Amino acid sequence: MMFLTRIDRIRIRVFILLAVSVCLYPACRHHESTPDSQTRAVTLKQKDLILPDRYNVAFLVMNGVYNTELTAPYDVFQHTQYRENIKAMNVFTVANTHDLIRTFEGLYIKPDFDYTRDKLPKIDVLVIPSAEHHTDSDLNDTVMIRWVRKTGENAMFVTSHCDGAFLLAKAGLLDGVSCTTFPANVKTFKDMFPQVRVYENVYFVHDKNVITSSGGARSFESALYLVQLLYGKVVADKIAKGLVIDWDLNTVKKVVIHQGNGYSTL
Amino acid sequence: MMFLTRIDRIRIRVFILLAVSVCLYPACRHHESTPDSQTRAVTLKQKDLILPDRYNVAFLVMNGVYNTELTAPYDVFQHTQYRENIKAMNVFTVANTHDLIRTFEGLYIKPDFDYTRDKLPKIDVLVIPSAEHHTDSDLNDTVMIRWVRKTGENAMFVTSHCDGAFLLAKAGLLDGVSCTTFPANVKTFKDMFPQVRVYENVYFVHDKNVITSSGGARSFESALYLVQLLYGKVVADKIAKGLVIDWDLNTVKKVVIHQGNGYSTL
Repeated sequence: MMFLTRIDRIRIRVFILLAVSVCLYPACRHHESTPDSQTRAVTLKQKDLILPDRYNVAFLVMNGVYNTELTAPYDVFQHTQYRENIKAMNVFTVANTHDLIRTFEGLYIKPDFDYTRDKLPKIDVLVIPSAEHHTDSDLNDTVMIRWVRKTGENAMFVTSHCDGAFLLAKAGLLDGVSCTTFPANVKTFKDMFPQVRVYENVYFVHDKNVITSSGGARSFESALYLVQLLYGKVVADKIAKGLVIDWDLNTVKKVVIHQGNGYSTL
Repeated sequence: MMFLTRIDRIRIRVFILLAVSVCLYPACRHHESTPDSQTRAVTLKQKDLILPDRYNVAFLVMNGVYNTELTAPYDVFQHTQYRENIKAMNVFTVANTHDLIRTFEGLYIKPDFDYTRDKLPKIDVLVIPSAEHHTDSDLNDTVMIRWVRKTGENAMFVTSHCDGAFLLAKAGLLDGVSCTTFPANVKTFKDMFPQVRVYENVYFVHDKNVITSSGGARSFESALYLVQLLYGKVVADKIAKGLVIDWDLNTVKKVVIHQGNGYSTL
């Protein structure tokens, strides 16, 4: 061990220096990309998102998801967490990746769960917010459609906004259930799914355990409706007020609530 | 160089192995985190977000930003890109970091620009969407307030939603300008900024080049108003229709548009 030449010792030191430098390199980069630890969001672990004694509300997201159809119901449902003495809602996004997805309008969002790999909690309410290719190529994603079918079959409520109804129909969740979709796509929907009754010019439709909304800014009303169904008018009114919405289900026009489905029609 | 003992050669090989392993480690981790390249969003480079001959519309985001107050105007403005023969709007998020920020409701969003480090384009419209601490600790962020002041002073329009008005007031951008804010925080606003005239129970206020909204779902109306101001009623109507909004400025209640500010009152 003591018979190393001077050159050999230098060579070994160079290797040590190289190894240490490479070890430190990722740490340096990390430091560069987090200039302000105070403002860096710490992503909650999946278990921290799923608090006990709450409903679990999953939002299916993917590239091309529309902002408003995602955030309107997301906000209404998340705000149940600030009302006392109710079984509030855990809300989380589910995608087929953990990488960033890009919304139609260009926001980059990191999904909470990957349905292809993660163990998901029991989902009580499934929300399909609508995305750019819900009327065409997304319908060919058999893994996704199978996940929607299985999750929807076991959920307490299944809801969609805008073109999300196309996914529900493709997954067979609208068989024998009337619905609505984005106004400009009603004809396409009828051509594609002639067996499903679709209403035109309505804000939302509730039939059995399925609530479908025409989407856009009308996504607030259908979400508030479900909140009122689960928690009553006082809670719905307070959440509406927090979102600066003049909410009164009795005066909301263009709503179809099917009778005899086991739920009160309020 | 040829006088190394066998032990020395082994030692050198171990160092080489160590160095190579450490080099490869980050690559392995990267591969693990990108399982599905087809569905992974590719973030647009900053230069690709800023197309020429468009207005640049910056949305200030941070931890605690409210979803709806961000996405409602974001969608209205981004949808100008689908209308022909107009100077449409580039929309992008600006934060004091490139790391993920967590919205109040729990979405994780990756900002497009970091105002503390990046070279930003000329901002024509500044949007302050409101965030959880806009009425308290955010007002002590002198770097942020300075950025808001400087950007707002050079912008064509300055807009806020909900408590975003607190930031504008703190930055001095509401001196001599009337405004509105989130209904429940009007009293706090008056106490904090007695020199600023604030309207209660209105959807939005337009005074000079500042448009302030009460926030929540009312954020659509103030954004549509600005679109109508810049592009006319036909464009505003089409964007409203795409978001399933019955839009008619003449019938929108609770709006204050100050006369004599150099803009038509429609």
